[in-house]
Amino acid sequence: MGKTIIEKILSSHSGQDCQANDIVVAQVDFVMGQDGTSPLAIRAYNNMDGKELFDPEKVALVIDHSSPSPLEGVSALHTIMRNFAKQKGCRIYDIGEGVCHQLIPESGKVGPGSLVIGADSHTCTYGALNAFSTGVGSTDLAGGLISGKMWFKVPETVKFVCKGVLPKGVYAKDLILYLMGQVTADGCTYMAAEYTGEAISALSMEGRFTVANMAVEMGAKAGLMEADEKTFAWLKDYTDKEYTPVSPDADAAYARVLEYDLSDLEPQVAKPHTVDNVSPISEVLGTPIQQAVIGTCTNGRLEDLRIAASILAGKKINPDVRFIVAPASKKIYLDAIKEGIIQALVLAGAAVVTPGCGPCVGTHNGVPSDGETVISTANRNFKGRMGNRNAEIYLASPATVAASALTGVITDPREFVK
Amino acid sequence: MGKTIIEKILSSHSGQDCQANDIVVAQVDFVMGQDGTSPLAIRAYNNMDGKELFDPEKVALVIDHSSPSPLEGVSALHTIMRNFAKQKGCRIYDIGEGVCHQLIPESGKVGPGSLVIGADSHTCTYGALNAFSTGVGSTDLAGGLISGKMWFKVPETVKFVCKGVLPKGVYAKDLILYLMGQVTADGCTYMAAEYTGEAISALSMEGRFTVANMAVEMGAKAGLMEADEKTFAWLKDYTDKEYTPVSPDADAAYARVLEYDLSDLEPQVAKPHTVDNVSPISEVLGTPIQQAVIGTCTNGRLEDLRIAASILAGKKINPDVRFIVAPASKKIYLDAIKEGIIQALVLAGAAVVTPGCGPCVGTHNGVPSDGETVISTANRNFKGRMGNRNAEIYLASPATVAASALTGVITDPREFVK
Repeated sequence: MGKTIIEKILSSHSGQDCQANDIVVAQVDFVMGQDGTSPLAIRAYNNMDGKELFDPEKVALVIDHSSPSPLEGVSALHTIMRNFAKQKGCRIYDIGEGVCHQLIPESGKVGPGSLVIGADSHTCTYGALNAFSTGVGSTDLAGGLISGKMWFKVPETVKFVCKGVLPKGVYAKDLILYLMGQVTADGCTYMAAEYTGEAISALSMEGRFTVANMAVEMGAKAGLMEADEKTFAWLKDYTDKEYTPVSPDADAAYARVLEYDLSDLEPQVAKPHTVDNVSPISEVLGTPIQQAVIGTCTNGRLEDLRIAASILAGKKINPDVRFIVAPASKKIYLDAIKEGIIQALVLAGAAVVTPGCGPCVGTHNGVPSDGETVISTANRNFKGRMGNRNAEIYLASPATVAASALTGVITDPREFVK
Repeated sequence: MGKTIIEKILSSHSGQDCQANDIVVAQVDFVMGQDGTSPLAIRAYNNMDGKELFDPEKVALVIDHSSPSPLEGVSALHTIMRNFAKQKGCRIYDIGEGVCHQLIPESGKVGPGSLVIGADSHTCTYGALNAFSTGVGSTDLAGGLISGKMWFKVPETVKFVCKGVLPKGVYAKDLILYLMGQVTADGCTYMAAEYTGEAISALSMEGRFTVANMAVEMGAKAGLMEADEKTFAWLKDYTDKEYTPVSPDADAAYARVLEYDLSDLEPQVAKPHTVDNVSPISEVLGTPIQQAVIGTCTNGRLEDLRIAASILAGKKINPDVRFIVAPASKKIYLDAIKEGIIQALVLAGAAVVTPGCGPCVGTHNGVPSDGETVISTANRNFKGRMGNRNAEIYLASPATVAASALTGVITDPREFVK
């Protein structure tokens, strides 16, 4: 019987010809933790009498969630990570390097067919590279650090066939928000999503990362795409390593196949306080906002900043809006400076924060005030997510966020896109 | 009898021919508050039944100490400031604009002969522009916002005659740290310092701001300099307003006249935990550091960043050091990008934070961990200043901080300065 992408990756990594619902123990290619989860993982590692990492070259710790540290207690956690990395010989990405989910792909250590675990729910992002990558808890991470192995129940797969090409002014973020709204937050619980079709092929790699990143918001264990020439062109910028693409078999068994035609899609918005509370932008136009955020592991990439700059260059944001920009990595920050993007955004009124998670997780860099409304390119809008339970968060594309920063109300970006 | 600079400025602003120790009520030219002090001032303003500002054009509020907000409670304070500014019609500098003590000079509203009060102790910075500017408490600020007036006991003046020209690799910060060590933290309590002599004339305006900024660390009410062609050239970049220089009379009466020859000065360092615990760098060479900071109202200006970049361009900082750079204003940030300075610093390993106070006041952006040592260009190294009482802070010039970031230990910058 044919296999889905995830069945093939778990077969090759477990040495077991597996299919959905089998239990396997698989070798992992890379293990990652961030500063919200690694300190707990390190404690678990020590409790398990961990001595050495299974392979220091295949482990990275990233300080991105609260970076630079806003609190003494957080600084102590960072110290635990620095000491562990030094002692065990693995790579640590310290303050200012960026978001883990941009840095690990940039490291070139993940590609088609890879199996990656990370102690962060959005580790599913690397599915855009045709890898099975998934978030695990801190204790599981500790086991992975020691053994280089992880057990899985092989997920069933839901296939999303995305037909048509997105219209002008409509982006990867709108696509994934739309799918979110359709399937809801528990629509793919413990399943692998395979995103396929013309609308996915037409996306840049950056757009594909955005789509894969949000798979977990549907409850999915992974959000996978096939590798194509764009995938390999992207990888070439970061590594010489050869990867073999993993495609699903024609007769693979899917739990469901869902088809969508996206050629007439409107910009989409996730309304407070759940990611699947999605509506077309036309339903929320004119909602006043006080803060606009572009960044995060969902939409802090060069293309995202470029789109925002194309809307805002030579203009000034609404004086009642704070506009926060968090590039997803140091490389993106420097590339955006080279293109004049950062300068255009700052002249328009942006406060550029250190590459990293920015205000997404509510620990610093722009906690909203009571009663305020934020529009953000992040992937979560839960009550309190940004550090204040009395604020409301809308999720949208970088174009929608930029257009809304300009006007002070939620705005359809299509009028600003040439 | 002749007058000192401060006696002249207080005479002109009080309409009273005053001298040291007189009590006067003076008209102020500008009133400023930041986010640590303005919320209290606004409460006092309301308790005083304040209705209108004495002149909204002469008032500014600046969100710089915790910007963007790292905490819900801080966000609420920012909201109080935004609402007040909107209601009263004064300027507010919101997140990402920079440090008050850079923004107020850049506004062009302060110059020779001006009298400025600000609810921040380092308001003395504008003394570099031949202005009497001084820090006041939040309640005094409230009175100033309503009346445009402030009472003063006219300070006595201490004259610092700074002879010689600083050697290569020795900067304004070294000069003022040296003077600090000589006179100590209570050496000028409630006095005006007049800084004069060849070593002062030879400084750029940026260097002069650094010197004036630290007058309060000697206990001084003000740190004043005469205006010269450099002062007026600097002002021309920011305003068309004509200012008349205020020079002390030849027969002015000084409480003390202190002479120093600075032509052989070594780089200086203030050691933990007081600003006057100063020694030549030779006494602390080799002290390991874990964090290096360039920025703040003392040393976050273009010249400061340029010096750091000249030392670090093409090199990498020590891997055990976090290096945080906080440009003092959006203008400085953009100018530093234009010159390639930001890029060089980031490539060397810097985490650039949003223009503002950065980690100086311990509220975010780089709180050190227990047992760590920081070297910083800031003006205060008190125990706990940066948010952790179990950290040690050394103060030094941008060159010394950059050289130390490179090596990982406190390092004499002269070996790196061409």
